[in-house]
Amino acid sequence: DASFKVIDPTNYVAFTFFIGTMAMMAASAFFFFELNNTSKKWRTSVLVSGLITFIAAVHYYYMRGYNLETGESPIFFRYVDWILTVPLMCVEFYLITKKVGAKVSLLWQLIAASLVMLITGYFGEAIDPAHSWQWGLVSGIAYFYIAYLIWFGDVAKLAQTAGPSVAAANRTLAWFVLVGWAIYPVGYIVGTPGGLFGMHVNLGLNMDIIYNIGDAINKIGFGLVIYSLSRKDEVA
Amino acid sequence: DASFKVIDPTNYVAFTFFIGTMAMMAASAFFFFELNNTSKKWRTSVLVSGLITFIAAVHYYYMRGYNLETGESPIFFRYVDWILTVPLMCVEFYLITKKVGAKVSLLWQLIAASLVMLITGYFGEAIDPAHSWQWGLVSGIAYFYIAYLIWFGDVAKLAQTAGPSVAAANRTLAWFVLVGWAIYPVGYIVGTPGGLFGMHVNLGLNMDIIYNIGDAINKIGFGLVIYSLSRKDEVA
Ligand SMILES: CC1=C(/C=C/C(C)=C/C=C/C(C)=C/C=O)C(C)(C)CCC1
Ligand SMILES: CC1=C(/C=C/C(C)=C/C=C/C(C)=C/C=O)C(C)(C)CCC1
Repeated sequence: DASFKVIDPTNYVAFTFFIGTMAMMAASAFFFFELNNTSKKWRTSVLVSGLITFIAAVHYYYMRGYNLETGESPIFFRYVDWILTVPLMCVEFYLITKKVGAKVSLLWQLIAASLVMLITGYFGEAIDPAHSWQWGLVSGIAYFYIAYLIWFGDVAKLAQTAGPSVAAANRTLAWFVLVGWAIYPVGYIVGTPGGLFGMHVNLGLNMDIIYNIGDAINKIGFGLVIYSLSRKDEVA
Repeated sequence: DASFKVIDPTNYVAFTFFIGTMAMMAASAFFFFELNNTSKKWRTSVLVSGLITFIAAVHYYYMRGYNLETGESPIFFRYVDWILTVPLMCVEFYLITKKVGAKVSLLWQLIAASLVMLITGYFGEAIDPAHSWQWGLVSGIAYFYIAYLIWFGDVAKLAQTAGPSVAAANRTLAWFVLVGWAIYPVGYIVGTPGGLFGMHVNLGLNMDIIYNIGDAINKIGFGLVIYSLSRKDEVA
C-alpha cells in the first residue's frame, strides 16, 4: 500500500482485519516450517493446514486493504476464500480417515455439500438478498449434512476405528464444525436484510467482525487440532 | 494493487479469476512442499507439476488485474501461459515413460505438436479471426495427434510396459487430454466470431469462465494425478 490512511482507533473492523492478516501469515509460517519436523504419516495433513491459513493470509491482506480504502464489506472475497478453504477442510477429514479405508467418494460427498452450502449462501447474501431465507435454508441443509457425516456418518465411523488419537481429534473437529462454523450463519443473519428463517437480529456487531473471529477460530484452530494430532500420534 | 475496485457480485468472470489465482498458488505451495516427502524416483515429476501451477499462478494474478481494470479478455496472456505450460505437460508424459525407454525424440514430437496447436490457435483467435476455422482445423489436427500418441501411440505403448500404476496414471491423463483439453476448443468456439468448423454456439457463458475452469481441471487435476502416482508407486 503506497498510501497510508489514518485509521480511527474505534474502527474495530479494521482492527480485526489487520490482526487476521498477520495471524494467518504467522500460522502459515508455523505449519510450513513444522513440516520437516513432522512424521511422514502426518506431513500432508499439516501441509493442508498451512495451505488453508496461507490462502486466508493472502485474502485477508487483500480484504484489509479493500475495506480500508472503500469502507465496504468484502463479501466477494470472503466467498472466494471459503470456496477454496472449506473444501480443503474436507480434505483434512479425508486424510485422517484415509488410512483406515475412507474412499475418495466420501471426499467428493463432503466437497459437493460444501460447494452447495457456499454457492447458495453467496446467492442469498450477495446476488438475491430478497430471498435470503430460501437460499439460507438450502445452504443450511447442506451444512447439516456435512455435520451429520462428521458426527454420525462415515467420517465418524471410520475415525472410531483409526485409534484413540484420531477418534479424539475427529470429535474435536466435529465440535468445530457444529459450533465454530455456526458463527457464519450468525454473520449472515446480521448482515443480510432478510436474515435467516425470519430472524434478523441486530447484535450491534458488524458482520465482518463476526466473520473475522469465525475465521480465526476455524482456520487456525482447526489446523492446530490437526497439528496436535500429528504430535500425539507420533508419541503413541 | 493500489486501487481497489468494488466488484459487482454477479461478475463471475472476476470470481473465477480470483479463485484461479489463489488455487494455482496453493497448488504450487502443495507440490513444492511435498517434494521433500516424495521418493527420489518421482521428485522431478512432482516438481514439474508445481512449475505448471506456479507459472499459471503468476499469469492468473496478472490476468485477474488486467480483466478487472480493462474489462477485456486477456487472450494474449492465455497463450503466453499455454506456450509454457502445455510443453511442460508433454514433459510429464516423457518423464513417466522415460524409465522404460522413452526417447527424447518422443518428447520433441509432443512439444512440436503442441506448439503447432497453440500457434495456429493464436492466429485464429487473436490475429486472423476471419479465418478462424482454417486455423482451428490445423490446431485441431495437432491436438488429435497429441491425443493419438497418448492413447494409442508410443506414450501408451511405453506406459503399458511400465507397471500397473504408471499404466493407470497414463490412462487417467489420456482422459484429461481428450476431455479436459477439449474444453479449450469449446472456449474458442464461444469466443471467436467465426467459431470452429461452422459451429458458433452461444452457451451464454463467457469464454474466460470456460478457460478458467479448463485450466483449474487440467493444471491442478493433471498435477494431482502425477502426485497420486508418486504415492501409489512408493507403496507398491
Ligand atoms: C449455513 C449457512 C452458511 C454457512 C457457512 C459456513 C458454514 C461457512 C464456513 C466457512 C469456513 C469454515 C471457513 C473457514 O475456513 C452461509 C454460507 C453463511 C449462508 C447461511 C447459511
Ligand atoms: C484444438 C484447438 C485448441 C486447443 C487448445 C488446447 C488443447 C489447449 C490446452 C491448454 C492446456 C492444457 C493448458 C493447461 O495448462 C485452440 C488453441 C483453443 C484453438 C482451437 C482448436
